[in-house]
Amino acid sequence: MKVLFLTKMIDYFLQRIEDLKKEFSSDFFIVPKNREEAQKHIEDADVIVSGSLTKEQVLNAKKLKFVLVPWAGVNGLPLDLLDERNIIIANNHGNGKIVAERALGLALALLGRIVEYHNDLAKGVWHGYEAGAKPEDFWYSLQGKRVTILGLGTIGKHLAKLLCGFECEIMGFKRNVEPVKGVNYVTNNLEEAIKFGKVIFVTLPLTKETYHLINKEIISQMQGKFLVNVGRGQIIEEEALYYALKNGILAGAAIDTWYLYPDSDHTVQLPSRYPIHTLKNVVISPHVGGFTIEGQVGRIDETIENLRRILSGGMPKNIVDLKSEY
Amino acid sequence: MKVLFLTKMIDYFLQRIEDLKKEFSSDFFIVPKNREEAQKHIEDADVIVSGSLTKEQVLNAKKLKFVLVPWAGVNGLPLDLLDERNIIIANNHGNGKIVAERALGLALALLGRIVEYHNDLAKGVWHGYEAGAKPEDFWYSLQGKRVTILGLGTIGKHLAKLLCGFECEIMGFKRNVEPVKGVNYVTNNLEEAIKFGKVIFVTLPLTKETYHLINKEIISQMQGKFLVNVGRGQIIEEEALYYALKNGILAGAAIDTWYLYPDSDHTVQLPSRYPIHTLKNVVISPHVGGFTIEGQVGRIDETIENLRRILSGGMPKNIVDLKSEY
Repeated sequence: MKVLFLTKMIDYFLQRIEDLKKEFSSDFFIVPKNREEAQKHIEDADVIVSGSLTKEQVLNAKKLKFVLVPWAGVNGLPLDLLDERNIIIANNHGNGKIVAERALGLALALLGRIVEYHNDLAKGVWHGYEAGAKPEDFWYSLQGKRVTILGLGTIGKHLAKLLCGFECEIMGFKRNVEPVKGVNYVTNNLEEAIKFGKVIFVTLPLTKETYHLINKEIISQMQGKFLVNVGRGQIIEEEALYYALKNGILAGAAIDTWYLYPDSDHTVQLPSRYPIHTLKNVVISPHVGGFTIEGQVGRIDETIENLRRILSGGMPKNIVDLKSEY
Repeated sequence: MKVLFLTKMIDYFLQRIEDLKKEFSSDFFIVPKNREEAQKHIEDADVIVSGSLTKEQVLNAKKLKFVLVPWAGVNGLPLDLLDERNIIIANNHGNGKIVAERALGLALALLGRIVEYHNDLAKGVWHGYEAGAKPEDFWYSLQGKRVTILGLGTIGKHLAKLLCGFECEIMGFKRNVEPVKGVNYVTNNLEEAIKFGKVIFVTLPLTKETYHLINKEIISQMQGKFLVNVGRGQIIEEEALYYALKNGILAGAAIDTWYLYPDSDHTVQLPSRYPIHTLKNVVISPHVGGFTIEGQVGRIDETIENLRRILSGGMPKNIVDLKSEY
């Protein structure tokens, strides 16, 4: 049995692998030092721990039986090819409660104009009653407002919990309508969900069905609403988002998941092809939804537990349905 | 009966005064157009609506019986002089639940490094796992942490309510120890309160007792803690705050209430004598705790209701105890 780790490792992950080595043969576990070493081990791997594989890598992985994604999103994998080969993919939701906190923090920063006012005050420019009672300087309270949560997985459910003190009315959007704790209404009708909320949270996974779910037509129905995305960038059409913000359709947006990402050749990288970062009614965040110690420990612990199940001859938890892609 | 308004008026305030004019004589209400007109009317005023009066103004106000402060803080009034003359002061807490939301929003922005990461990403600089798994880029979750709330008035109580979904353990600090809903422990021992929380919220009024309550010695006990101030600036010693942030005693601070404010001669004004605004572990906010439409409506409605009581021959609600100054 060979388990190959093709993901960025923090010390805590390495420590937990040491624990596994004591329970199973230490030969099982390969943490390659660089890309070349990784490529060399792919063809022997029974299990790969990674959220991102190319088709070529999968074709080379002739013994591959399991892919463990050390977070929730499986959009970095060639799902069709893995499905053809009957390879089992499991993801995990160990950082969902932290991503929910990011979503709420970004929403309060957006509605509260916290970034805009910080940057102005750092130049000595004041807003609010100390600078004259101008209603255009008001920020916007979330309390008592209608909220829509698109997606009621771990993140969406936990977001509803974090909102419990805000006296918001909450509508959730999910494919299979069923009651969810802390959510007042659940619907599978997107237009109804969009119409309901003053603030709309996107916590969905990226799948064929959710790709560009929020397109130009849907965004045109969002006059005066705030949009918060901690799901995946491509759920919202990039150009439609930019023009809706620029032209005053959306009241504002707070975005953690993006269209462009840095890579080893481009470590400095703006997150969109459009100048979204120049707009005042926007809060931008560098895809750090789960990036706290608890979020990392949560997702790593769940990954280690799934490895333990596989190495003991069982099946992992959270097997991804390759038809629905989550 | 003459009621003189010496405070910045938004349209909603003027509309509510029109309502009063229909119930009482319209001659009762004076909204001066400028400073000169205001001075002229002071000596006839039975009631002044203002949060800020000079000693000279009070000496000139020979008929003055009531001062209605259209918010909570009475630190802009010459309390000793008003006390000598047996003038009744009433304040109001109509915007307290909005200030509580500001406190939580600022805390999540501070712990979540939302301003720092926004400003870096706007230059194409990423933090978090997309830019390499560097634990020094972690943000800090509030969930499950110990929280201290200094002051359990309207703001502090409501803050505990907003935190209900966060599974925090909460200690409140108040002079008179009594159980408070949503607060796990209440103490009147400042050092115990400071020791308890990882995040410390200041929601106190400014009085002789709270002036510099957080001084150099107390701040030296706050290693690694986050400090959020939505009370009044002078509760925290300015120099001690700056050096505690600069020298890594405090993990960070989010501040809405300040040391320096703009005035008509200095509309551009940095908020501190120290370069607090240049530090990365700081979120600064231009004293807008109650500055939402709901916050304004709340404080104005309560002020109008108190005027109605006085004009009907009764006593206002929320009379300030001039010995304890709140």
